[in-house]
Parts: sequence; C-alpha cells; structure tokens
Amino acid sequence: MVKVGVIMGSVSDWEVMSAAAETLETFGVAYEKRIVSAHRTPDLLAEYAKTAKSRGIEVIIAGAGGAAHLPGMVASMTTLPVVGVPVKSKALNGLDSLLSIVQMPAGVPVATVAINGAKNAALVAVSILALHDEALALALEDFRRRQTETVLMTELQ
Amino acid sequence: MVKVGVIMGSVSDWEVMSAAAETLETFGVAYEKRIVSAHRTPDLLAEYAKTAKSRGIEVIIAGAGGAAHLPGMVASMTTLPVVGVPVKSKALNGLDSLLSIVQMPAGVPVATVAINGAKNAALVAVSILALHDEALALALEDFRRRQTETVLMTELQ
Amino acid sequence: MVKVGVIMGSVSDWEVMSAAAETLETFGVAYEKRIVSAHRTPDLLAEYAKTAKSRGIEVIIAGAGGAAHLPGMVASMTTLPVVGVPVKSKALNGLDSLLSIVQMPAGVPVATVAINGAKNAALVAVSILALHDEALALALEDFRRRQTETVLMTELQ
Amino acid sequence: MVKVGVIMGSVSDWEVMSAAAETLETFGVAYEKRIVSAHRTPDLLAEYAKTAKSRGIEVIIAGAGGAAHLPGMVASMTTLPVVGVPVKSKALNGLDSLLSIVQMPAGVPVATVAINGAKNAALVAVSILALHDEALALALEDFRRRQTETVLMTELQ
Amino acid sequence: MVKVGVIMGSVSDWEVMSAAAETLETFGVAYEKRIVSAHRTPDLLAEYAKTAKSRGIEVIIAGAGGAAHLPGMVASMTTLPVVGVPVKSKALNGLDSLLSIVQMPAGVPVATVAINGAKNAALVAVSILALHDEALALALEDFRRRQTETVLMTELQ
Amino acid sequence: MVKVGVIMGSVSDWEVMSAAAETLETFGVAYEKRIVSAHRTPDLLAEYAKTAKSRGIEVIIAGAGGAAHLPGMVASMTTLPVVGVPVKSKALNGLDSLLSIVQMPAGVPVATVAINGAKNAALVAVSILALHDEALALALEDFRRRQTETVLMTELQ
Amino acid sequence: MVKVGVIMGSVSDWEVMSAAAETLETFGVAYEKRIVSAHRTPDLLAEYAKTAKSRGIEVIIAGAGGAAHLPGMVASMTTLPVVGVPVKSKALNGLDSLLSIVQMPAGVPVATVAINGAKNAALVAVSILALHDEALALALEDFRRRQTETVLMTELQ
Amino acid sequence: MVKVGVIMGSVSDWEVMSAAAETLETFGVAYEKRIVSAHRTPDLLAEYAKTAKSRGIEVIIAGAGGAAHLPGMVASMTTLPVVGVPVKSKALNGLDSLLSIVQMPAGVPVATVAINGAKNAALVAVSILALHDEALALALEDFRRRQTETVLMTELQ
Repeated sequence: MVKVGVIMGSVSDWEVMSAAAETLETFGVAYEKRIVSAHRTPDLLAEYAKTAKSRGIEVIIAGAGGAAHLPGMVASMTTLPVVGVPVKSKALNGLDSLLSIVQMPAGVPVATVAINGAKNAALVAVSILALHDEALALALEDFRRRQTETVLMTELQ
Repeated sequence: MVKVGVIMGSVSDWEVMSAAAETLETFGVAYEKRIVSAHRTPDLLAEYAKTAKSRGIEVIIAGAGGAAHLPGMVASMTTLPVVGVPVKSKALNGLDSLLSIVQMPAGVPVATVAINGAKNAALVAVSILALHDEALALALEDFRRRQTETVLMTELQ
Repeated sequence: MVKVGVIMGSVSDWEVMSAAAETLETFGVAYEKRIVSAHRTPDLLAEYAKTAKSRGIEVIIAGAGGAAHLPGMVASMTTLPVVGVPVKSKALNGLDSLLSIVQMPAGVPVATVAINGAKNAALVAVSILALHDEALALALEDFRRRQTETVLMTELQ
Repeated sequence: MVKVGVIMGSVSDWEVMSAAAETLETFGVAYEKRIVSAHRTPDLLAEYAKTAKSRGIEVIIAGAGGAAHLPGMVASMTTLPVVGVPVKSKALNGLDSLLSIVQMPAGVPVATVAINGAKNAALVAVSILALHDEALALALEDFRRRQTETVLMTELQ
Repeated sequence: MVKVGVIMGSVSDWEVMSAAAETLETFGVAYEKRIVSAHRTPDLLAEYAKTAKSRGIEVIIAGAGGAAHLPGMVASMTTLPVVGVPVKSKALNGLDSLLSIVQMPAGVPVATVAINGAKNAALVAVSILALHDEALALALEDFRRRQTETVLMTELQ
Repeated sequence: MVKVGVIMGSVSDWEVMSAAAETLETFGVAYEKRIVSAHRTPDLLAEYAKTAKSRGIEVIIAGAGGAAHLPGMVASMTTLPVVGVPVKSKALNGLDSLLSIVQMPAGVPVATVAINGAKNAALVAVSILALHDEALALALEDFRRRQTETVLMTELQ
Repeated sequence: MVKVGVIMGSVSDWEVMSAAAETLETFGVAYEKRIVSAHRTPDLLAEYAKTAKSRGIEVIIAGAGGAAHLPGMVASMTTLPVVGVPVKSKALNGLDSLLSIVQMPAGVPVATVAINGAKNAALVAVSILALHDEALALALEDFRRRQTETVLMTELQ
Repeated sequence: MVKVGVIMGSVSDWEVMSAAAETLETFGVAYEKRIVSAHRTPDLLAEYAKTAKSRGIEVIIAGAGGAAHLPGMVASMTTLPVVGVPVKSKALNGLDSLLSIVQMPAGVPVATVAINGAKNAALVAVSILALHDEALALALEDFRRRQTETVLMTELQ
C-alpha cells in the first residue's frame, strides 16, 4: 500500500526528485509519484492534498523551484507531514526555492530539506514511517551503519 | 461597482496594505478588502480567485510576507491581472517575500511591486483601469503632475 | 494596431525578450519591438515613453539587466502600465537587475516579473488587454486550460 | 510518557523555543526540554542523541543560531526524525542559522522550519505523532479548523 | 563659481547627503544642492544633466535609494564625472541602492561610493578638482594629515 | 606623459583589466600598467601610491578580486582619485570584491565601478582628465555620440 | 612580556574588541591594544606589522568593519598568525566586513572568526600560545570545562 | 612526528583540501590526512578530536561544505587551534559552508579561511608552528619573499 506521495511542480524537477523515489525503493517503501503544479494545476493540487490521507498516504514529499508554492499549499490542505524539497533554480541557484518553501508562517509547517535534497526528503519520510514499522527501523539503522562504514573505509590518495 | 480586490494573508499585513486602499480611495476607485490566507484559508483563496472576475473585479492586489504564496496562488486560479506586494518580513526583511512572489514560473505571472510597495500596487491597478476610463486617466495624469510639482517646490535647508 | 511596446536595453537582451514577442504573437496581439537604452539613448527613451500612449500603445514591456534603469525611467514618463523584466546578469545572476527594477519608490510603479520572465511579462500584458477584449479573454482562458492539460497529461518515467 | 525532546543550544534560545513547548502543551503531547549545546556540551549531545530513542522519544526538535550545528549533529547520532529550528542571529538575522541547519548532506536529514519557527516545529512533531494517534489527529484537524475560522472571522478596519 | 552639483532623489535623502555638502564647505568648494528625482521629475533630471557642464559644474554627486536611477541617468546625459551615493533603504539596507547604482553597463560609468558614503563622495569630487587647483590639493593633503593625526592621538581606555 | 596608472592585484586580473587599457588607448591617454599586489607586494604598493602623484599620474585605476584591498590601500596613501574595479571572483561572483572595494570608511574614498567594469573605470578617468583637456572632452563626447548611434542603428531580427 | 597585539581600525570598534582584551586578561596573557587604521594610518600599519615579531608579539588580533582591510594588510607584512574580527557594520550588518577579511587570496592568510567574535579571537590566540605554555593549556582546558558545566547547570524555566 | 591533522567531511573535498597537504609538504611539516564526516562518522569525529592533542597534533585543519559542521564540532572537543576551510558547495557556492564554519558562538572558535582556501589553512598552521620552530620560521619568510619576487617579476603583456 502506498505510504508516501512524491509530487513535483514540473517534469523538469524529476531529475532531482527521482533521488527520493530511488531511496524509497531501496527501503521498500511503496510510493506514488506525480506532477502536481501549484500554478498550472491548482485544482489537482487541492484534490491531491485533501484526499491523500484517506488514500493511506502518510507522508507527502513535494519538490518545486523558484517561487515554490507546492509544498506550502499542499501543507495548507492536509494535516499529514509535508517534506519540502527546494529545487535549484536557474537564476538564483535555489535560494528563491528555499526561502519560498521554508519560511512558512506559524500554523502550517513544511519540513524542509537542502536545495536538491530529495534523497534526504525520502530519509525523513522513512524515519517517520519507521516509528511504527520495526523492520523499516532496522533497515534505516542498517543504512546508516553502512553509510558510516563506507566513509571509514574510504582512503584518500 | 467594485473594480479592485485588495487581499492580504494576515491582519498584520493591513498596516502595509492600507496604503493601497487609501490610494484607490484617492482616485475614487471602488475596491473591496479582505483577509485571504493562502495557508490558513485555502478554500476561501480558491473561491475568491475563481469568482473575482464574474463579480466584476478587474485587478487583484495581493500582499503577503515570508513564504508568500497568496499572490501566485490567486494568479493560478484567475486570468485577471494580479499585482503582488511583498510585505517586509521579520527575519529576512522581505527578501523572502519578494522572491516568493516575483519568481513565478512561465505561464502564470504575478506583477510584483517593491517590498511594502502597496501604494504602487494601487497605482498599477489605476493605470490598468485608466486604459478604458478617461476620467481616471486624467486623474492619474493629474496625480503624477502634482507629484512632480511637489518635488519641484521642495527646498533643501 | 500596435498595442504593446516591447523594448530592451541592449541587443543582447533579445535572446531573453524574444519570448515576450513570441507569446504576444501566439495571442495575435500586435506589438512593436525596439532597443531603447536608458544609458546610451536617453533621448530616445524619453521620446518613446512620452509618445507611447498617443501612438495607441496600452502596455509597455521593458527588459534590462544589471543597473537596469529602463523600466523605471519609462514608467517615470508615461502613465501606461509598465511591465519590467529583469534580465539575468553575468556577475550577479540578475539579482542586481531584479532589485534595480522592482524596488521603485512610491509614486511610480513598475510591475515586475521574474528574472528572465519575458513570457510572463507578455501574459501580464495580455491579461490587461483582455479586460476589454472578449476574444483575447477567451484566448487567455484557453491558453491556461491547455497549459493545465499539458501538465495533467505529462507522465513521469 | 515523553514523546518529544525539545533541545536548544543556549538558554537565550528559550525565548524562541518556548513556542514549541507551548504548542506541544496545547496538544497534550508530553515533552522534555533541555539545553544541549553542540559546542559547549558535545558529550551531552552524543548521549542525548544516542539514548533518545530508547527512552521513548519519537521526535526531536532542536533549535540553534549562528553556526547552528545542534540539529545536524543530533541527526547524525539518531534515526529519529529531527526537526531543526534556525534561531534568528544578531548579525545575519538567522540566514546563517538557516543555512547551517537546512543544507545537510545526503544521508543525514534535518527537517527544517522557518527562522524562529518553533511553533511550526511542534506542529511537524504533532503531525508525525498523529499518524498513529487518532485523538491527536483529530486535535490537529480541530486546531487547523479553528485557525481557519479565526482568519475568516477577522475584520479589517 | 559653483563647481559641484549635489543632487538627490528625495528630501529624505538630505539627512545622508548633507554630509557631502558639509565636506565641500570645509574645503571651500562652491556647490549647489537640489532635489532631482529620476522618477518624479525626469524632465528636470534631463535638463539638469544636460546643462550642468555649460553652467560650469565639473563634478556631479548624486544620491538615491532603492531602485536608485538618478546617478546612472544623470551620467547618461553628461560627460562630467558622476559620483553616486547609494542611500540606505528601509527594507534591504541599501543593497538595492548599491547594486542599482554601481552595476552600470559598459559605456556609461558612475563612480560609486559606500552606502551612505556622502562624505566620501565629496572627497572624490575634491580629489578631482584638486588636480588643477594647487590650493585645494594642499587643503586635501592637510585634511588627510590631520585625519591621520587624529587617529594617532586617540587613546583606547 | 603617463596620466593614468592601471594596476591590478594579480596577473589573472589582466583578462578583465585589459579593457581599461584598451579604452585608454582608444582615447590616446598615456597610461602605465603594473601588477601591484596588496598582499604579496605591500612595499611596492606603498611606493607606487606615494610616488604616483609626483610622477605625473592623475588617476589610478586599481582592480582586484576577493578580499580586494588594493584600491582602498592605494587610496590611503595618495590624494589622487582612485577608481576601483571589483574583479569577479570564483566562489562569490565578485560580491566579495565589490563590498571589499566600495564600502570604504569616511575619509578615504574609492570611486567604484561595476564588477568587471574595467572599461567604465577608464571612462571615469577620461571624464576626469577631460575637465582640463578640451580635445579629450571632445573625444569623449564623440565616443558617447557614436555609442548612441550604434544603439539607434541596431535592428532586432 | 606582551604576547598578543590587539588592534582595530577605529575607536568605535573598541566596543566590540574589548571582549578580546577582557578574555586575554582572564587568561593572564599580556597584550597591547592600539588603534591602527589601514586607511587613515597606513604608515603606522606597516610599522606595526613589520616590527611586531621582533617586539615579541606572537599573535595579532585585528578587528575592522566595512571594507575591512586591516587584518589582511597586517598579514601581508608579517609572518605571525593574524586573527581577523569582522566588526558588524551599519548598513550591511558585517557581511561586508566578513567577506573583506576572510576571502584572502592564496599566499597570505587571515584566520577569521565570527562577526563581532572578538572573544573567540582571543581564544584562538590563547590556543596558539598554549601549545608551548603548559599553564596556559591547563587554564584553557579549565575554561572550557567550566563553560561546559555552566551549560549543564542551567535550567530552563 | 605528525604535527598537523588534515581532515575533511567527504572524499570529494580532497580535490580542494589536497592544496593544504601539498603546502605542508612544501614546508616539510609532517601531517596526517583523513576523512572524518561529522554527520556520517560522529564517533570517529569525537575520537579524532579528543585524542589529537595526546597524539602530538598541534593544529587541526578541517574542511567541509554545505551545512559544514566538522570544523566546529572538532573545535568543541579539543583545545587545539582548529582551522576551518569552507568548501565551495554546489547550490550556494560555499556561502553556506562559510557561514556554517565562521559564525561559531563565543567560547569555541574556529579560525576560518576563504572558501576553498586550503592552501591558506596550511599557511596558518605553518605560522603557528613557526612560533617555536626557527627553521620553519625562516622557511615561511623565504616562502613569502619568493612569493613577493614572483609578483615583482611578472610582466603584463
């Protein structure tokens, strides 16, 4: 059953956001992916956000660039945790994306990761799901352990 | 008949946005004002944006601060001209508001004015309405002429 | 009859500003295009701005980069709506262009779009003209509808 | 039983971080609060992060300013979700805090909220806990509903 | 005979620009001061810039804030040296003023000083005039010598 | 006789600074060029600055990047006009160079041009020298006239 | 015997830099303090930097604001470790000071601390001196231990 | 005997940090190099920092990018001088790295060099070691002398 929704404002964001999908697959977390544009498909955005919970989604990962309104607007229409991914923009390198996503007003939060941090968005989702999924919790700890080992075994030459 | 809608994300924005209202009053342009929060009242936002044109509104002025999504989301649901006012924010002095409003993706524009530039937002609206309202056009020219005269008559001491 | 003037500070801005021209053509809006440099042809700037209205122009789209003074100076000499396009600059990626255009003082507004947002500048112009042109209004709604459909039909793979 | 740990780098951060505590109290979520300085008490930091999960903590909220290393370092030593609050700094208004917290490398995420966004950090924690606490989920929906109603009932004068 | 023109975009700039006037007085350099607003009095701006040289002006000092177009536009209409003073702005602390003034395109320069650096603008003018005024050159050297001595004699306590 | 000194902090700055030399050559202004590094040749810097005036130099153009101290330090040791050119830096695109050069304290000015604005630095020097060189003044006016004509004759296609 | 030189560009910097002096006193490290302005007393700067080592100074702490050239220029004329303190500036909050100090070119380093970080500059000096001063090393460890204890004993209320 | 530890957060930082190693080799300073990731190997970080002094290390050079916590966290667990190198990051060009490293709170300093300034970090270390190593002091002075001569002998063409 799909637990995580991965959405993004434009097909061009997929180059970045696919890292979230790949990470979720690594953990065996079922997810769906979809283009949902805040500005070009506002009705789809509303429908997506309002029905996500009833469809069993537990975490929504939303990526967008520039005047990035997708994560915040999804968050305004659901009580699920929403993780925002600021996608690097052409002119301002994602500073606009970051500020548009993270500077939400009190009352409606978006949990924001680094510019182009789609992999980490997936890891936030996994850490949330792992709170009530022992196997996933073990997998996450294993992932972190192997990550540590990889660093320890890397040699500088 | 109401021609301009002045909306803002929070009651605290009124301190800035009232300058738009005052300017419209100076020109005798009928307007309505309302709090419409993108994040706290998304349904009102959709309703407002989608019905504005049929209610006779010709220009929407939308002010918001921080992760300022109101102008862009209104623009996504109407074909009316939307003028965005970035309201100065506490931490980042409105740079976040400005980038969140002005950096819209191709396809859905917001006509943005300066940080806290509510008076100019009203003047943009007036200049648009004046295209088909000769009296308003004359009033705008008169306003600009008097503005020029005021500068010319100011003495430095 | 020409309704929109598309001007820019330098021939090198045409790479960006041509998107405005193309969009206006898509909508069948008659426009003129011209290089008007605030700093190298200030007399032409004054003449252009002061005669635009009497020549039937209803909206001026002005693009410039760096210390971008063209949109604001045109706005200082006409009461027509002026839409400013900050062109991405070499050193500062258009942040200088954006601030030079958007931060106009109270009294003389420039309706600013995103860095390199020439297409959206045209859409602002279209939305203004559409207020009194039913066919254009329908075309704009159709454009937006097709834009929405394009997103809805795009598949991520 | 304590579900959320609210930690901060300095006693001076409490002025900001107390909003997280108050919000958790509003929702009846048991929490603990503590000063844990990444730079002045690194051993406490390690102990806190490594034992949090076994003590039943499900979400850690960490606030810090300037070169804000607390949230990221806690995240490096736990697989629990860590929510980072950039505290506004004296010289750079929290831009340093924000970048120090949000720009984590792939592999170890911090879910970041706005500068001084302690209330929203608590709401992120509540949204996570609510996934497996029906009463809390209802309380969160009720909170959001009342928040919406407050906006709807506010009059501009 | 007046050698330096000190102009500024608004009466509120006088608080900053008066330091230029005071410095010029200290050196006995004749100057005139005037409000010339690029946006509100563009015709005065053109007249001022185009006639300055024939009236005997040798250096123009121009101060402005926000989208600060005055120095650059004056420079576009005279071959005299133009010294620009970015006046600190309310929202962005003069970063907008600075970039609007200093980032001039190749072909039309503005010699820019620090944000609120009106005193230094006057010193630039004095250094230019001193090239052909031996008494002024001596006065400038004397000013610098006394400035050095003041520092040397200051005690920290 | 050499009237302008063109100095720069590093041989790598020559790619930018050569535009100043070329412009001076266009105007037939005699100049010298030299690498003078504030940080690697501070004694040369002091000697250069202190002897420039007695060697007949009237304007010094100094270019540097990063923590760009050359223009300001030269200015501290001469009363000649010093024109600073912020050279675009690798990491911060010249924002560091610009602020290091333009933000001089009251008492010692540097007349700053745009990032990489070496051509304009030469034009500032020419405008200063032209105050007492009628032929140069005419050449500068001619340069500006031809510059205007070039823009007027450029066609967009 | 004086081991540390604490210098600053202006008497107004003392408000910030006195924290360095106080910290050195706490550790019983002999120091001297002096105003040395890069721009107003360049000869004193050269003399100070060139003679510091022979006078027994082992570390120089230099604070300055705006176009802050003092630390880098001192570093250019000594091989002693130079610690730079960016003093918060009025317009740009010390961002200009920070970049002017830290962005030194390869070959001449300045060890930079935080904006207004005078206390930490002293601690850097102490850590250097402690490498060959066992008593000082113990004092530094004791200082850090007590600092840790202070945090551990602070209660949030 | 190893005097300097050169550590970095990721193998990809070696491209930058190798300049520190090469410079240390030039001076014949024994060093060790190692990947120590604050976020992926926090236990190694603690062990490294806590044992460095007893292993004879006198200066630690730590490079990291993005939310760069390595230098500050090492500094929190040793009283040795720690020199931080902000590594240029992909999205924000190292501004995030710089602020994450330099803006340390009072009590735990990091001596920070320029973005990608690994060579200068080594020179800081050399200047510290040279305080009690006469041969190294001479080598450093020789290095600086030859550096000066190289500039003096470079011809612009």
